Amino acid sequence: MLTLFKNARILSMQDDKIIFGELLVKDERIAFIGEHYQGEKPDKTIDCEGNLLMPGFKNAHAHTAMVFARSASDDLPLHNWLFDCIFPMEEKFKKDDIYHLTKCGILEYISGGITAASDMYFEVPEIVKASEELGIKNVIVATKLSEPIESIRNNYLTLNKKGSLISYMVGIHAEYTTPKERIIDIAKLANELKAPVALHLGETEHEVQGCIDRYGMTPVKFLDSLGLFNYGGVAYHANYFTDEEIKICKEKGIKIVTCPASNAKLASGICPVSKYVENGLTIAVGTDGAGSNNSLDMFKEMYLVSVLQKLSHKDASIMDGFDVLKMATVGSAKVLGLNECDVLKEGKYADIIMIDLKSPSMQPLNNIAKNIVYAGSKDIVKMTMINGKILYFDHKFYIDEDVNEIYKKAQEITNRLRG
Amino acid sequence: MLTLFKNARILSMQDDKIIFGELLVKDERIAFIGEHYQGEKPDKTIDCEGNLLMPGFKNAHAHTAMVFARSASDDLPLHNWLFDCIFPMEEKFKKDDIYHLTKCGILEYISGGITAASDMYFEVPEIVKASEELGIKNVIVATKLSEPIESIRNNYLTLNKKGSLISYMVGIHAEYTTPKERIIDIAKLANELKAPVALHLGETEHEVQGCIDRYGMTPVKFLDSLGLFNYGGVAYHANYFTDEEIKICKEKGIKIVTCPASNAKLASGICPVSKYVENGLTIAVGTDGAGSNNSLDMFKEMYLVSVLQKLSHKDASIMDGFDVLKMATVGSAKVLGLNECDVLKEGKYADIIMIDLKSPSMQPLNNIAKNIVYAGSKDIVKMTMINGKILYFDHKFYIDEDVNEIYKKAQEITNRLRG
Repeated sequence: MLTLFKNARILSMQDDKIIFGELLVKDERIAFIGEHYQGEKPDKTIDCEGNLLMPGFKNAHAHTAMVFARSASDDLPLHNWLFDCIFPMEEKFKKDDIYHLTKCGILEYISGGITAASDMYFEVPEIVKASEELGIKNVIVATKLSEPIESIRNNYLTLNKKGSLISYMVGIHAEYTTPKERIIDIAKLANELKAPVALHLGETEHEVQGCIDRYGMTPVKFLDSLGLFNYGGVAYHANYFTDEEIKICKEKGIKIVTCPASNAKLASGICPVSKYVENGLTIAVGTDGAGSNNSLDMFKEMYLVSVLQKLSHKDASIMDGFDVLKMATVGSAKVLGLNECDVLKEGKYADIIMIDLKSPSMQPLNNIAKNIVYAGSKDIVKMTMINGKILYFDHKFYIDEDVNEIYKKAQEITNRLRG
Repeated sequence: MLTLFKNARILSMQDDKIIFGELLVKDERIAFIGEHYQGEKPDKTIDCEGNLLMPGFKNAHAHTAMVFARSASDDLPLHNWLFDCIFPMEEKFKKDDIYHLTKCGILEYISGGITAASDMYFEVPEIVKASEELGIKNVIVATKLSEPIESIRNNYLTLNKKGSLISYMVGIHAEYTTPKERIIDIAKLANELKAPVALHLGETEHEVQGCIDRYGMTPVKFLDSLGLFNYGGVAYHANYFTDEEIKICKEKGIKIVTCPASNAKLASGICPVSKYVENGLTIAVGTDGAGSNNSLDMFKEMYLVSVLQKLSHKDASIMDGFDVLKMATVGSAKVLGLNECDVLKEGKYADIIMIDLKSPSMQPLNNIAKNIVYAGSKDIVKMTMINGKILYFDHKFYIDEDVNEIYKKAQEITNRLRG
């Protein structure tokens, strides 16, 4: 199957250049990018009318199924949000709830130009099934405290060979929710597999103080002392790292996933992204879950990454818009190990979005890439393609399922969990 | 002309209740809201399929024509942005540039559910023409330093009788850009007309310190001492008011327009909205211009109003989402004197938007009103109606002009200004 995009602006994200030309997709992958394609006749030709092709966004930290908690607990302090609202609802889960809820969340990804997510949530097989059926990439991260180490090892070894849509990382939920013995067991596994470990880390001041009280060390230092990061790590949130912890991150290859919207709504804090950049850390962008965000919208995240740095430094020149666009695409891909769909390039997977430059917020044209960060929102996504398949075009889903049925199922489950 | 909306959720914004029922529009106004309409046969019936009708957003502070500067000057400090980028471009204006650029900006309003804006910009007749031709409400505010007082008086007296789309307020750009003699002249006019005066006020620390250096008083106190606020006022931005100034605002009926996105991107500061609310001030929400924002998007503004308060107070329970929704609709209408289109009610103008609750970010349904603030973006706007006319439906404009021609003209002008 050959699909040719013509009359396209193309932002490969290998650099900040936008070329005008054509892009050919052959089956799952990009086969040509250039001025004019002259090979075998394509099966399908799409006239982009000057609109922009770029790599899809990679949502580097998510709990997709948590759409059940969307707007169920707004304007509550973190503790009440978690203990009075979220946990009691999660206790009522039935086995396939997560399958249906994950599908509902994936619809938001697809319509918002997100071509890969990274789900830290329970019931791995359900997440795999939902992601594969809708055709989105998902880097699933171990989180369940009660899951046997053997099961995590098995997931790691099997899911990372399962195909291009699914991959798997070793993880723990967080230091403050995981007994020391369990952390040590996970560290052993990570060392055996030579794998990085992903977790919530440095999200709140309360968490950091708790770790100091428990172990006399800040979280990164404590976990590193247990050998958790010998093969790298991924830190979700990372709002409160000391200079010493930043140094450990650099030495051990711990990468950062900033989730500014969720942290802002829960008043957890502002991730010092520009400081991390100065220190050479790799930064990715994530939405966190809909219970605390409430949207799953990389445009909102990108905007916040930039302006919260500008505000907190009282300096409008800090945190360049293009650098943020890179974080949400290339940076997130790097953190998730998605090296075959990070940029638009011949041979890479065709995980491509089309930005509608005829959207009012994109007009008139000037610095298109930066304007996606500063003025973009989900309405500018004209197309989402994953592995060469168009899943969304002109506000319509092209999936093998009835969207209204997915919504209906999610609503039924949500009503039961809230009841 | 009778248009009946059926199967609608209706959020009137008179309170936070959502009813399920029908809404009839007769010509320009709302003629019925209730469970079931049983009168004269409507000319047109729209099945809302459970989607939400609510009042349109009112953008209480804008420089619509500044779309020419969209993404022309990102990531620059305020001073360089203004003096090296904006002012040199504005010097190249030709007479009807503002007409064409304003039209381009209005498209973003309409597609984003904004039914009224308040334009502080030059060439009033051009703004009037653009707004009337596209059918949007615009409360134009005097700003040009060189405009004779007689012209402002004349605009005030004529434009406020011109019909329901256009109205006019007395204003000055700001204290720091206006000589004292001119401020006194404007104060005299405001007292003569018994009119409030609108202006940029307390936007940056630099501005406040400048006023103290010039006059030995903070801006609100200084301007009030000249009699500028004897009939009230409208303060754009208001990031740095002292307690004494807040007291003056309360006594003199000075209302606040917060523009969080622009202030964040230019690193100007965070408007202490919750403190103003505690002090009983009326709050409206505005986008400011696209040169500093870069979007004209009330969803982004509402989200920021809430989360920037939560972040700066380190309290997730502060700044309730519904209160913010009220600011962007009812609050803005109050500040702009748009009392006939503030809420959905029989007899009010039919300035109505339909929110697509089948958008992924709205699913599953729970607290719909709060979720518009926390998860909404322009993609959830299904319809925009002003004065009973549908201007936008299902991602298409219904205006008497070719959208691409508006874009083309705006691009030509922009290229010339930037050249």
